[in-house]
Amino acid sequence: MTHAAGITGAILIGAREVTSDATFRAIDPARDAAIDPAFSEAGPDHVAQAAALAAIAAPVFRDTPAEARAAFLEAIAAGIEAIGEELIARAGQESGLPAARLTGERGRTCGQLRLFASWIRMGGADEPRLDSALPDRAPLPRADLRMRQIGVGPVAVFGASNFPLAFSVAGGDTASALAAGCPVIVKGHPAHPGTSELVGRAIRAAVAQCGLPEGVFSLLTGTRHELGSALVADPRIAAVGFTGSRAGGLALCRIAAARPVPIPVYAEMSSINPVFLLPAALEARAEALGAAFVGSLTMGAGQFCTNPGLVLGLAGEGLDRFIASARTALEAAPAAPMLTPGIADAYAKGVDALAANGAQTLARGHGGGPNSCRPALFVVDAARFLDEPALGHEVFGASSLVIRCTDEEEMRAVAASLEGQLTATLHLDDADHALARTLLPILEDKAGRILANGWPTGVEVCHAMVHGGPYPATSDVRTTSVGTLAIRRFLRPVCYQDLPAALLPAAVAEGNLLHLPRLVDGRFEPGGA
Amino acid sequence: MTHAAGITGAILIGAREVTSDATFRAIDPARDAAIDPAFSEAGPDHVAQAAALAAIAAPVFRDTPAEARAAFLEAIAAGIEAIGEELIARAGQESGLPAARLTGERGRTCGQLRLFASWIRMGGADEPRLDSALPDRAPLPRADLRMRQIGVGPVAVFGASNFPLAFSVAGGDTASALAAGCPVIVKGHPAHPGTSELVGRAIRAAVAQCGLPEGVFSLLTGTRHELGSALVADPRIAAVGFTGSRAGGLALCRIAAARPVPIPVYAEMSSINPVFLLPAALEARAEALGAAFVGSLTMGAGQFCTNPGLVLGLAGEGLDRFIASARTALEAAPAAPMLTPGIADAYAKGVDALAANGAQTLARGHGGGPNSCRPALFVVDAARFLDEPALGHEVFGASSLVIRCTDEEEMRAVAASLEGQLTATLHLDDADHALARTLLPILEDKAGRILANGWPTGVEVCHAMVHGGPYPATSDVRTTSVGTLAIRRFLRPVCYQDLPAALLPAAVAEGNLLHLPRLVDGRFEPGGA
Repeated sequence: MTHAAGITGAILIGAREVTSDATFRAIDPARDAAIDPAFSEAGPDHVAQAAALAAIAAPVFRDTPAEARAAFLEAIAAGIEAIGEELIARAGQESGLPAARLTGERGRTCGQLRLFASWIRMGGADEPRLDSALPDRAPLPRADLRMRQIGVGPVAVFGASNFPLAFSVAGGDTASALAAGCPVIVKGHPAHPGTSELVGRAIRAAVAQCGLPEGVFSLLTGTRHELGSALVADPRIAAVGFTGSRAGGLALCRIAAARPVPIPVYAEMSSINPVFLLPAALEARAEALGAAFVGSLTMGAGQFCTNPGLVLGLAGEGLDRFIASARTALEAAPAAPMLTPGIADAYAKGVDALAANGAQTLARGHGGGPNSCRPALFVVDAARFLDEPALGHEVFGASSLVIRCTDEEEMRAVAASLEGQLTATLHLDDADHALARTLLPILEDKAGRILANGWPTGVEVCHAMVHGGPYPATSDVRTTSVGTLAIRRFLRPVCYQDLPAALLPAAVAEGNLLHLPRLVDGRFEPGGA
Repeated sequence: MTHAAGITGAILIGAREVTSDATFRAIDPARDAAIDPAFSEAGPDHVAQAAALAAIAAPVFRDTPAEARAAFLEAIAAGIEAIGEELIARAGQESGLPAARLTGERGRTCGQLRLFASWIRMGGADEPRLDSALPDRAPLPRADLRMRQIGVGPVAVFGASNFPLAFSVAGGDTASALAAGCPVIVKGHPAHPGTSELVGRAIRAAVAQCGLPEGVFSLLTGTRHELGSALVADPRIAAVGFTGSRAGGLALCRIAAARPVPIPVYAEMSSINPVFLLPAALEARAEALGAAFVGSLTMGAGQFCTNPGLVLGLAGEGLDRFIASARTALEAAPAAPMLTPGIADAYAKGVDALAANGAQTLARGHGGGPNSCRPALFVVDAARFLDEPALGHEVFGASSLVIRCTDEEEMRAVAASLEGQLTATLHLDDADHALARTLLPILEDKAGRILANGWPTGVEVCHAMVHGGPYPATSDVRTTSVGTLAIRRFLRPVCYQDLPAALLPAAVAEGNLLHLPRLVDGRFEPGGA
């Protein structure tokens, strides 16, 4: 495949490139300086054009064989890799994230596209179910019934600032929506418009290479709220994927619910990811836990949805040793530039609010620079935490609060008081299992993923992953935005009753020519070539 | 098992029976007369009590083995059957529906409970997925990740008037929520409170017999809107199942979306179920189609969500023969009592509105009586239908509108103009396949179930059924309220990362002791004993 054109600042609407009079520039947060080129501001007119193309593409793309969509996803991955170091360099400049991290993120992004390709080849999109006709059943015969899942229609994806590759233009929402057979219109995050354009051009090239309708993909980047509002309100959009702030996610949910035809918004919004240090584990390795905790806390300037923002332990010698170790590690942690000036501002205010609400500052990192996050660690008694809801608010960045509990009952009370979370973590030894058993039912109610003896910041892209959780971690507790189960967000079941064989879709046709795993008369048939 | 107590008029809150000062009586619609006994009006206080019990029961019930819940569902079915003819007699008195229909509906209700029992024994609730640890993977090892689905928490179920057994207290919503491990609070429909109490007592007896927490089931029946509002607003309710009017469903959706923690509402609301008569099929059997159509239209006084309210054909001799046959059959169709005086009023107004909006009356049924539905058949040209949205409104009851299209393009235009539907039906012969191929992509966008050469009023309870569809047929196009896929509405995924074997839930433990079908490292393992 040919190398995509470089960064021009254009809006990508299907196969067309469009410019607008209003422009904006990306900011290099580490230098606090604008970067060339100027990018055209996308607005409501561009939304209407992209949505019209997506609506035309939708029935065609929905009915492509899974194999065709799999090849398309693989072509996107190859196209992203073919951009080469320009992508890493530009993403680094726009995000302040180091090249090693971005290289890893690119690998994850392309691996994710390929995982969805393999999943839909295995029938992960179609999920066929067949119930045979029973013409002689009394008192009434049973018809021949066949179900498959199909794409819901055009999907709006909002790129996140904190993963300029893996949660942005070709991130998990886009990959799962395309895998489901849904055209995608990305609302690119204005913090990394150049990165977005490079990736958007790779997707567009793959659309052309695979002979798909141009409306399968458009990229609209802009700084104005009206862009996102118009996109969610457009009647041709059938679902929304969003990763970002709670205020942003809820605003989109309101717009979607107020439409003449409401649509689902899958918003991944906020989480403070509690970590429970159980007594035997603390006794055995408080110092090691303290150091490892700070490593997880400060990675990427703490700008992860799964950053450990809350640590609970029973007051005592073990917790004191943990705190001492964490304090030492945190004081040694350097400040790092945050993704945007706005995020750096919000971080500073959030840290101030914790202190103002009665949390005691244990340590801060050192150094500084434009838009930097100087890591922060606080401690507070559980009684105070239970009295002050503001102490449970997310501070996006490397900030965490240690909660000192007087006994196990208070630890459970804090757990039960929490809002919905993406993750909850237990550090435990065998002697902690009895306490863990009392915490697990509470944590299952609170979180989408429960970890033992690890740190929540790594999110594996696989079949069993859940990156989701009860509100306000996400707007829909039944879903995940990472892993192959994410595809279900963009699928809907359709049943065909007594449809003549000549008209049946291949996924539910006689003979299982696609070798898909199918549920036939209530029995799983594994499929396979 | 012992026979449940008869009808007392009490509110059933867990194991307790409660009465209130305010009471109401059921109406026998065929006699237009109130029936004894008086029923206590449930209100917000009762909601709070039932929700408190449900919240206590939820974590226990959620973690019961699928086998225990399956046995519970089977005990409910046996208990309903054990009520005997009292149930059929009372349901007939309260609904005006004939005994044969209600006997069939009871069979469907009990069969549905047993189907969900068999489905969760097969792992249909847990859906386990396991990804093995890869400790040696570079650059980062992979953790051990295991996903299972668990119940979302207490579910509010709104009984429907038109299926006093199969969509009411122990209907599809209740069966699927209990199968998922969710406690259920039923808001009983005030049109059939005695039927509701009999079935509610059977469920309550099964709860006790199976040693489950009493909060697994409560039945609150009342006539006031504040009862349903309080139930959906209660913070302990995690999801809502509803079958009824569009106004009612949307009101619940608004309440659910405005909660501090929004929850999903699965509302099945309205559908006019278009039937397309393609030319070769009309040519071959117009008369037979006309008669069969009227049979489907008038069954149960047309009080089905899947009643064929719209029939499309190309103007010409075949359609004329269909109309003549349908007219004759409809004129011979007797009036029948409707479920409630309110439904009979709304039917009369809906029929008047069709005539007032330019539809020509082809025929009416004969006879009458209190609250009766006198079947009605109308015809209108497609051009007029496309101009007048009111002609597309659902008229609940035996009323249908034939749309005369001038050509295939106009037929497709009418199809594309429709709102979301539960079903769409094609009557076709081989020579109609080319036209059908152009209609199918439109109908897949519009409906949850597409039938060929049948009538939409029968809804099979099986694995491949979809009783759902795009808004406003339902509030959530990704779901069905009939068939085993309905369980997904009440499940959410939870991932366990590196959890010690001693703490793992059985569904995702090593060795697959429950013999469940599982997805292991991306490969389906069929399970089985």
